[in-house]
Amino acid sequence: MSNYNDDLKWRYATKKFDSTKKLEESKLETLLESIQLSASSYGLQPYEVLVIKDEDIRKKLHPAAYEQPQILDASYLLVFTANTVIDEAYLDDYMENIVKTRSMKKEDLSGMKDMIMNAVISQSNEAKIEWAKKQAYLALGNLLSSAAHHKIDVCPMEGFDASQFNEILELKDKNLDTAVIATVGYRSEEDALQNAPKVRKPKEKLFHRL
Amino acid sequence: MSNYNDDLKWRYATKKFDSTKKLEESKLETLLESIQLSASSYGLQPYEVLVIKDEDIRKKLHPAAYEQPQILDASYLLVFTANTVIDEAYLDDYMENIVKTRSMKKEDLSGMKDMIMNAVISQSNEAKIEWAKKQAYLALGNLLSSAAHHKIDVCPMEGFDASQFNEILELKDKNLDTAVIATVGYRSEEDALQNAPKVRKPKEKLFHRL
Repeated sequence: MSNYNDDLKWRYATKKFDSTKKLEESKLETLLESIQLSASSYGLQPYEVLVIKDEDIRKKLHPAAYEQPQILDASYLLVFTANTVIDEAYLDDYMENIVKTRSMKKEDLSGMKDMIMNAVISQSNEAKIEWAKKQAYLALGNLLSSAAHHKIDVCPMEGFDASQFNEILELKDKNLDTAVIATVGYRSEEDALQNAPKVRKPKEKLFHRL
Repeated sequence: MSNYNDDLKWRYATKKFDSTKKLEESKLETLLESIQLSASSYGLQPYEVLVIKDEDIRKKLHPAAYEQPQILDASYLLVFTANTVIDEAYLDDYMENIVKTRSMKKEDLSGMKDMIMNAVISQSNEAKIEWAKKQAYLALGNLLSSAAHHKIDVCPMEGFDASQFNEILELKDKNLDTAVIATVGYRSEEDALQNAPKVRKPKEKLFHRL
């Protein structure tokens, strides 16, 4: 059995990808399934992910990510976006999915719907988008560990201009807002960072036992 | 080799824990190490996690989590909190950790320090706390998949009153703010939800290939 934590020690935020080594389509599908299986608040998955292979689009985005080479050299650029319209219709879509997947009656879910209306949908738009972005980060965490498990490299990135990404990708019209991005592929042997010891908060500072 | 996505299909948000089946200390340590190894923006890990076994404290928190039984029945309650003071001194602590871990000179990191000062530390307190909470969600994602890999059950929870949690746990004085919580242990065989099919956005709605 592979050791989960050893996989996490193997991974690192890859700065230099081997642009000649392309991620296989079947492995990309495995990673996307990991994202799809991520937990989210009430199961609402309030995000969508752009999976960008197209070189021209990546060239357009490159300056908006401070020209970091990963954008071009990795096999894929994943853009995690938050849904910006999370209203009753959005919730009804979700309810319909539950009804279908679990062969239930819509009436059986009315209590659940009321609860989510109250806890989530009734909040301000700004609060909902922040909430949605947190769920996207949870899914990003899942992508990182799934990739590590499969010996695939990822660089999670916050160093980009979200409003420029939104504009270039025409996300406003699609009711999406860029939350965080990640490049996926294989590390270059020349990337010295892969050998640097991991820097982490010591356990006694990170955890408090009560 | 265990299949990562099969583990994710096995997991579910456990509502009913078997209170007689306690999580072994060694397994808890494995999960905490997974959290510790989580990626975070610039590696800053701007959070701390309270690992609560104490029954009296959990009884106090129970009403603040709408009396959900997981709080009492699980083996541990993990409270992910964001650091609320992320200033130059906080960054210097981190820099010192890098210097020590990687046997570097402080001078070699001055460019990195300037960059993080500019990108993170200079932001408003409110923005930094939201940013910190997102990093905590990423770590939560890692906890969920590590637990699934080790056949340990978790219920990630947003259904709680954060200000009451902060007060009961006296977090303000410790410069911490509750972000999200999770209960950890083993599922009860009686929890019918473990057999319910997973409801997820279909791939064509979740992913957009470009």
